[in-house]
Amino acid sequence: PYERTTSDFFIPEDVRIDLTKKNEAANQVMPNSQLPQLDNYHSLVPLDTTHRKNASIFGYNSWVYKAKATRTGTVVCLRRLQDFRLSNEHAIRSVKEWRRIVSANVVQTHDAFTTRMFGDSSLVFVQDFHPLSQTLAEAHLATSSHGGRFAQKNPIQESVLWSYITQIATALKAIHGKDLAARCIDVTKIILTDARANRIRLGACSILDVVHYEARRPVAELQQEDFINFGRVILSLATNTHPSNLNNINGSIEQLSRVYSVELRDTVLWLLSPQQPPAQKGIEEFMRGIALHAFAQLDVEEQGRDADKSHLSTALENGRQFRLMLKLAAINERHELNGDPNWSENGERYLLKLFRDYCFHQVDADGNPVLDVYHMITCLGKLEAGSEEKVCLTSRDEQTSFVVSYKELKKQLGSAFGDLQKASKQAKGL
Amino acid sequence: PYERTTSDFFIPEDVRIDLTKKNEAANQVMPNSQLPQLDNYHSLVPLDTTHRKNASIFGYNSWVYKAKATRTGTVVCLRRLQDFRLSNEHAIRSVKEWRRIVSANVVQTHDAFTTRMFGDSSLVFVQDFHPLSQTLAEAHLATSSHGGRFAQKNPIQESVLWSYITQIATALKAIHGKDLAARCIDVTKIILTDARANRIRLGACSILDVVHYEARRPVAELQQEDFINFGRVILSLATNTHPSNLNNINGSIEQLSRVYSVELRDTVLWLLSPQQPPAQKGIEEFMRGIALHAFAQLDVEEQGRDADKSHLSTALENGRQFRLMLKLAAINERHELNGDPNWSENGERYLLKLFRDYCFHQVDADGNPVLDVYHMITCLGKLEAGSEEKVCLTSRDEQTSFVVSYKELKKQLGSAFGDLQKASKQAKGL
Ligand SMILES: Nc1ncnc2c1ncn2[C@@H]1O[C@H](COP(=O)(O)OP(=O)(O)OP(=O)(O)O)[C@@H](O)[C@H]1O
Ligand SMILES: Nc1ncnc2c1ncn2[C@@H]1O[C@H](COP(=O)(O)OP(=O)(O)OP(=O)(O)O)[C@@H](O)[C@H]1O
Ligand SMILES: [Mg+2]
Ligand SMILES: [Mg+2]
Repeated sequence: PYERTTSDFFIPEDVRIDLTKKNEAANQVMPNSQLPQLDNYHSLVPLDTTHRKNASIFGYNSWVYKAKATRTGTVVCLRRLQDFRLSNEHAIRSVKEWRRIVSANVVQTHDAFTTRMFGDSSLVFVQDFHPLSQTLAEAHLATSSHGGRFAQKNPIQESVLWSYITQIATALKAIHGKDLAARCIDVTKIILTDARANRIRLGACSILDVVHYEARRPVAELQQEDFINFGRVILSLATNTHPSNLNNINGSIEQLSRVYSVELRDTVLWLLSPQQPPAQKGIEEFMRGIALHAFAQLDVEEQGRDADKSHLSTALENGRQFRLMLKLAAINERHELNGDPNWSENGERYLLKLFRDYCFHQVDADGNPVLDVYHMITCLGKLEAGSEEKVCLTSRDEQTSFVVSYKELKKQLGSAFGDLQKASKQAKGL
Repeated sequence: PYERTTSDFFIPEDVRIDLTKKNEAANQVMPNSQLPQLDNYHSLVPLDTTHRKNASIFGYNSWVYKAKATRTGTVVCLRRLQDFRLSNEHAIRSVKEWRRIVSANVVQTHDAFTTRMFGDSSLVFVQDFHPLSQTLAEAHLATSSHGGRFAQKNPIQESVLWSYITQIATALKAIHGKDLAARCIDVTKIILTDARANRIRLGACSILDVVHYEARRPVAELQQEDFINFGRVILSLATNTHPSNLNNINGSIEQLSRVYSVELRDTVLWLLSPQQPPAQKGIEEFMRGIALHAFAQLDVEEQGRDADKSHLSTALENGRQFRLMLKLAAINERHELNGDPNWSENGERYLLKLFRDYCFHQVDADGNPVLDVYHMITCLGKLEAGSEEKVCLTSRDEQTSFVVSYKELKKQLGSAFGDLQKASKQAKGL
């Protein structure tokens, strides 16, 4: 005979911890926050860990917050540009275009608005929130620590770089395909939203479309720039160099070649080399060139998804049994119903109480408790399934025994819970 | 203020039903089965829904069963070839090669063995089991019903066909890349393992390597045949024609062109056209040709995976609270511990009992029960998190109140459960 271990009943520890931390991060609050409450968003928590101000990318100091949408209760990410004055009402409407970009590798943009709530005139972008994200720079690039020395990071595996390349290409396909340009392909504006799966997303598209609305440039030109910035991101990651320090491109390419394949080098070179107008680079041409990597990534993603699905299936069994336990708990030992102080002890409820004892309060021959999750879960599983199997329930004084099928118990649980619901003016959701 | 609805606390109904059905299918048993118990596998359930015998593919009648592996308790899929006599011991070892093929689009092969348990001499292949799979033929091709008429199916969307094409290409890449050939690309041997996600897997590779072991042919030749069979599968699906009825290829191509794009037609033509030796077709060449579809599929898969992950996260919260409830249930009203009949009523256990009342037995001002899942789940969530928040617990006679933080309650739960575990000779898994 075989034995299922209790780990078959629950989700693997590492997966659980990872998701738990993400949940906690999404629900985190700041008790004595000085941050304002906005019209449609509250409970702001700052996500910028450094207090360094850096206006180099948008031309304005920018701040990132987690916040809760008042109407829906969903958690969102807000990016605020400080001291921004909107000179043209149309500018902000260009965000609308970005709402249509739905891609696994682009952070979804929802809205933009101006506000004076921060004590200045700010422009705020509303995006999906991805808990515990890090920028590619944070995740991979050496940072000067307080002592002024550099914290060296390990070189990135080539397979991870290819994964990033296919993902940025996927993002650009979605963006260029809708006649937009990303405009902001930068190691500090691409976020790693799932480190275990190497999942990245372009995080700050749409912003420059609003900020530089007046100085509009042809989208074709901006798209060509996207390729060059794409190349710089990969070069920067491959050589562990902040893009601002990428002064000698040939030297960096040289350095890359020493660690990575010719194919990677040629791919980066293609991205970095401008075309002689009127010739233009196209994202589809690029995708064809790296086709095999896309297929490899696809296989990995599908296998990862299979694992996620099987965890979900386990979790679901737990979830169904959890609902059942909520019901049992609402019935067992309830101290009265409809004026009857013995409601929970009488009739079918008495059997449910004995079932609870049988399921959770087992003792061995010497009267020592038996804590056997396998037993608990199998009992609940059979109750859930309404199995024909019979179980012998013994009263506490051991004078009476009842032989009853799980099917009957399930019916009795339904009926007792139905009584409760009928008596209840506020029954929600079970 | 916003309100989370109870649907935020549970997984969407359709996802839940889908996974539940799969779970049920995996756990299904046949009470009065005539099927034998094998050396390492028991509880066989037949998966062939038709009783039609068909030896056309393997040269032997074949049967598919679900079974349980005795040692591990995992559910597997067994494919049995009836009346097969193994003439060469080496033949069966060729399955080893197939164990190394790990791909999202190939059913994983684990083992093969011969047995006389079925009353004949059978060859059995052990594979992963994918609950509620259908063959592509079952899912898409018109079948003659009992009345002899054909049940017409809707034409398959082009995007679905492309998804299938990228997946079969992914499978072939894994197989040809390890110097093997699939040999069995057939609408009845490719299974749809997740219809919601259009996920397919090659289901019967490895079999012909064993069966035709003696008549070995060069693998390069077999790989070239894979392309042609690949083309026939797509043509068959696109024209809703069983492959055995694909007699007029040009006519079928013509028919395909009327519904689908030129690109699809050219892709199928490429697959079907043999090369003039010594020229050979290669899977990588094919992949480059359909690169854009691979990227599209990648985006879809990643978005699907994100959704799965978020369900998993919800389910996980449920799961953690479920564990907590198992503990509470093991303590509350336990009728004695270590000879103390009042154990569950005394000290910290008394508070846990009052907490249970507070969480599950709420009543409104008139004494009617309040069944509020939001309340139950939030209370359990705070207990799980060990929140500093305080809660006022009132005794049943309403004479005494205790103000206690969730943090303290969590500690008390841990300690009471610790007592139980200490007293228990058989504590497993909580
Ligand atoms: N949509 C998002 N969801 C969750 N976290 C995000 C999101 N966008 C950004 N973040 C996180 O917020 C933090 C700050 O982002 P930001 O873009 O300001 O990076 P930065 O390193 O501060 O760059 P800069 O110097 O340009 O401000 C980063 O850790 C990033 O991972
Ligand atoms: N690995 C597997 N896991 C779960 N189900 C499978 C697996 N392999 C096959 N099946 C299912 O078993 C059933 C029988 O498969 P089989 O290959 O015998 O198809 P068939 O239509 O009976 O073809 P044939 O006429 O060649 O026997 C199909 O419904 C198929 O989806
Ligand atoms: Mg910042
Ligand atoms: Mg069959």
